Amino acid sequence: MEITPPPCLNKPLKFPNKLLMGPGPSNCSPRVLHALSLPILGHMHTETFQIMDEIKEGIKYIFQTKNELTLAISAAGHGGMEAVLCNLVEPGDKVLVAVNGLWGMRAIRMAENYGAVVSQIATSLGNNYSLGQLETAILSEKPDLLFVVQGESSTGVYQPLESLGKICHKYNCLLAVDTVASLGAVPFFMDKWEVDAVYTGSQKVLSAPPGITPISFSKRAQTKIFQRKSRPSVYYFDMNVVGEQWGCVGTVRTYHHTVSSSLLCGLREALAIICEEGIENSMKRHKECTMRLHDGLKRLGLEFFVGDPEARLPTVTSIKIPEGVDWKKITTTAMNTYNLEIGGGLGPTAGLIGRVGIMGYNAQPENIDFLLSVLQKLLKDKCKL
Amino acid sequence: MEITPPPCLNKPLKFPNKLLMGPGPSNCSPRVLHALSLPILGHMHTETFQIMDEIKEGIKYIFQTKNELTLAISAAGHGGMEAVLCNLVEPGDKVLVAVNGLWGMRAIRMAENYGAVVSQIATSLGNNYSLGQLETAILSEKPDLLFVVQGESSTGVYQPLESLGKICHKYNCLLAVDTVASLGAVPFFMDKWEVDAVYTGSQKVLSAPPGITPISFSKRAQTKIFQRKSRPSVYYFDMNVVGEQWGCVGTVRTYHHTVSSSLLCGLREALAIICEEGIENSMKRHKECTMRLHDGLKRLGLEFFVGDPEARLPTVTSIKIPEGVDWKKITTTAMNTYNLEIGGGLGPTAGLIGRVGIMGYNAQPENIDFLLSVLQKLLKDKCKL
Repeated sequence: MEITPPPCLNKPLKFPNKLLMGPGPSNCSPRVLHALSLPILGHMHTETFQIMDEIKEGIKYIFQTKNELTLAISAAGHGGMEAVLCNLVEPGDKVLVAVNGLWGMRAIRMAENYGAVVSQIATSLGNNYSLGQLETAILSEKPDLLFVVQGESSTGVYQPLESLGKICHKYNCLLAVDTVASLGAVPFFMDKWEVDAVYTGSQKVLSAPPGITPISFSKRAQTKIFQRKSRPSVYYFDMNVVGEQWGCVGTVRTYHHTVSSSLLCGLREALAIICEEGIENSMKRHKECTMRLHDGLKRLGLEFFVGDPEARLPTVTSIKIPEGVDWKKITTTAMNTYNLEIGGGLGPTAGLIGRVGIMGYNAQPENIDFLLSVLQKLLKDKCKL
Repeated sequence: MEITPPPCLNKPLKFPNKLLMGPGPSNCSPRVLHALSLPILGHMHTETFQIMDEIKEGIKYIFQTKNELTLAISAAGHGGMEAVLCNLVEPGDKVLVAVNGLWGMRAIRMAENYGAVVSQIATSLGNNYSLGQLETAILSEKPDLLFVVQGESSTGVYQPLESLGKICHKYNCLLAVDTVASLGAVPFFMDKWEVDAVYTGSQKVLSAPPGITPISFSKRAQTKIFQRKSRPSVYYFDMNVVGEQWGCVGTVRTYHHTVSSSLLCGLREALAIICEEGIENSMKRHKECTMRLHDGLKRLGLEFFVGDPEARLPTVTSIKIPEGVDWKKITTTAMNTYNLEIGGGLGPTAGLIGRVGIMGYNAQPENIDFLLSVLQKLLKDKCKL
């Protein structure tokens, strides 16, 4: 063999257990980590189909939907965005994106890739949209699809969605929503709010491992997908065939790809945990932790990047970097000294803000208090520019 | 909440440990399963980058390459096929697919989705191609890309590849190879054989969890990707940006998506195991187990679907279903009574053949003997039509 085994793989795999209070992923509970270590199952085994069915029911609960085309795709959250757009966009379709940070920008790029004519509404970073603004944009752009991010983790902005679906449907437009960083911590009612496509992150409030992404399509969206003139251009994300493997459509489970039983088990347990707690309790817990965090940040003299308290995302709090503070040094020291992750900005907010995440398993008062105490220490004297 | 928590998630998650001797996935070793249960890491943590770097080195070893664009994509093996084609195909490109089972057929569909003009060579099921046949087809079709499957698991056919890269390059054609079901059990030399794009399955000979897929592109392929007139249409698989996150290209690791640290840890350990054993030893072990299996199958009076012994894939043995035998009953009884997976046909071979897999952690004489003893019992009287 010309290429020999690399010595770096000769060392044992070892790293510390960190407390992940950045914008995600969050820590998995011991129960979820244990589920990840269960023996491998084949993708067509009876037990696997049962776990998939249970996951579907769990996802219907967290999205509050009865949609039959509800499943988890074998990809990161970003794959969810890809799956929504590649299935709902046909070349020439008009897509309107309400941008308020990085994710909207990504959606524009993806929609363009699928041949959409894309227009966007833009707002200054740190703000969300009123329903009136969105309706005006729909009226002027006449899109086939409106793409909105409920929780923009890159800015820490929360976008209210109630009544938006009705408005979209009045103008014959579908509504797609990214809830990657918000679901489970803020209200979301897919059916009642008439949302047509949604996906969320496994590794945020659900505290499941990354790599598997809950997704759901309304009857309206399903009709659009099944009546496309052209096939969705990505076979891997094609809901016509993925939906068959998941038993959502048709009567026979047809092999599409090898679903990872490890990730299925992890997600199944994470969904079981949120079902046991109940979404209302999960939201309450996140709200209380967020208030505790916000009170603490104010005591430290820190300011919020999002001015309007109603527009602040409870899962990701964005903080203006105070003058004279080296935030990079704060995040690095927190990580190296305390095994604590605190986030910086991302995309358009890089260098502008710090970000603290409160998600799922980590949303506990003692974690907030620990984070605040570390932040206080580091701000005091150590992390000046 | 209108939709209430589903009672099915109220039960504990429990299933038996099975011996997976079908066409994949194979079982993970306890060491790999343990790695899956390690605490979650963020996708931009120093430790994560180190694990990714170690994985890259491990993949270079198993592919026998020095290619800088070598990484693992966050998707099942099928995502590997998607990534190769979406990056290497531009609309109007001519793609030639050497079909010898389901995977070639899938590649045709994917390449068409990306706007390729696709032609195919076909052979009767159970045969492979001679280099002469492939060169003749290249000469007549003048493709920009030739797609070949080294180990067609749906038929159990092994396709020799030596010298094929040179032939392709003589005619200015790139060579893409699917080694999902073959790598680690048969020779593969990416650089020496001048292969331009390759991917393999994590869950086959590597015995890593499914959901993360090693992939590599040659300098030639990389040039094609970086000089495309149009962007690859799938952002999730776009090597221009995925390669940056993996530190393969450019100098800064730019966030692209949340890589699953759980799957990284599992794959890292699986690669460490094959590095410790050495590919030569792994191939030898698989060969010995395959001979043991084949001898046993002959003793049971079973016939091989692939006539030419040289064309038989050592990892997946395809067996003609003997007259009067209900193979479905065999696989079901093996599973229900012995927790043993034996495979049936797939796609074009469904109902025609049975398939036995010998892969990675499971390639041990005692597993072969157990499988043969179960098969003997079931064939004897229980599974007649």
